[in-house]
Parts: sequence; C-alpha cells; structure tokens
Amino acid sequence: MTKKLTDTERADALSTLPLWSPVQGRDAISRSIRFKDFNAAFGFMSRVALMAEKLDHHPEWSNVYNRVEIILSTHDAGGLSERDIALARFIDAAAASA
Amino acid sequence: MTKKLTDTERADALSTLPLWSPVQGRDAISRSIRFKDFNAAFGFMSRVALMAEKLDHHPEWSNVYNRVEIILSTHDAGGLSERDIALARFIDAAAASA
Repeated sequence: MTKKLTDTERADALSTLPLWSPVQGRDAISRSIRFKDFNAAFGFMSRVALMAEKLDHHPEWSNVYNRVEIILSTHDAGGLSERDIALARFIDAAAASA
Repeated sequence: MTKKLTDTERADALSTLPLWSPVQGRDAISRSIRFKDFNAAFGFMSRVALMAEKLDHHPEWSNVYNRVEIILSTHDAGGLSERDIALARFIDAAAASA
C-alpha cells in the first residue's frame, strides 16, 4: 500500500512542480498540455503509458486533438503519494522534450 | 469540408452502431469500453490513434486504467459525418478483437 504524503511532504513536492494545479474537491493534481498536433500529443501519451505501466501507476487523462489533460492521484492511498510526484516529474520531462 | 449526415443517413448509420449513444446537447455519439487492464486499454487506443491519423479524423477521449470513453463528432461539419461512422466502425472492430 502506498502512503499518502503528509501536508509538509505534499507542499514541498508541489513547490517543485509549478505546472501542476490542485484539483477542486479531490486530493489530486492536474496539468493541461498543448502540443503541435495529434501526432505529438499521442506520441507523448505513449511515452507516459509505458512509464505508467513500469511504475504500475496510471493517470486519469483525456485527449482532444493536440491537447492532453492529466489528473494524478493514488486511489489506494486516498490522495497524493510519491508515485504521483514521480509520474508528474516524468510527464514534465516528456512534455518538455516533445 | 466534410458534409454533415442528413437525418435519414444518420438514423440509418446509427442503427448499425448499437453500442454508440447520442451525446446530450451535442450532435455527437459516445461509447464507453472496459478492457482487461491498462495494457489492453492503451493497446486499443494506439490502434485507434493510428487509424485516426490515417483518416485525419480524431476522437475526443479519456482513459482511466482499463476504461476508455470516446466521443465522435466532426467539428467542421457541425455534427456527425461519414468520418465519424467510419471511425466508430473501426473502434468497434478494434474493441471486439482486444
């Protein structure tokens, strides 16, 4: 079972992830990313999918053409855990190199 | 520019796509599909993404672990067109073989 971050751990981690926002009404974070086109958006999603399987931790996400909206939360921890932070960091790196 | 289906064309096409539902408040159709796991869900999404690029017609879709929700509509036609029907048929075939 993955542990939920403490308030301090959460604040520290989120201060290093400025592109992510808290989700209203849920202990979760979200980021919206716009790519050049569908090819770039789905290429990015494929990289994130491979990492999600490796981490055994999956995003909630949607895609419309060149836009991808991502929500991260850890269901069995009832909120944000280290796995969300790890996946968010990978997502930021993958989006930056797209 | 892709032509919007007439009411008759639309009714005829949808009668052959029983797994799709009209979207409230939009001229669009949706289908929700549950797979065995994320691997199967994203494998399916990858097949649909390749076909979407080939058809130059893209779904609006979301994924949470083993579930995929898909909405089809043709923006520049202002509603359902033959391209939505073609993509819906491919999606049904891909989901059936997943």
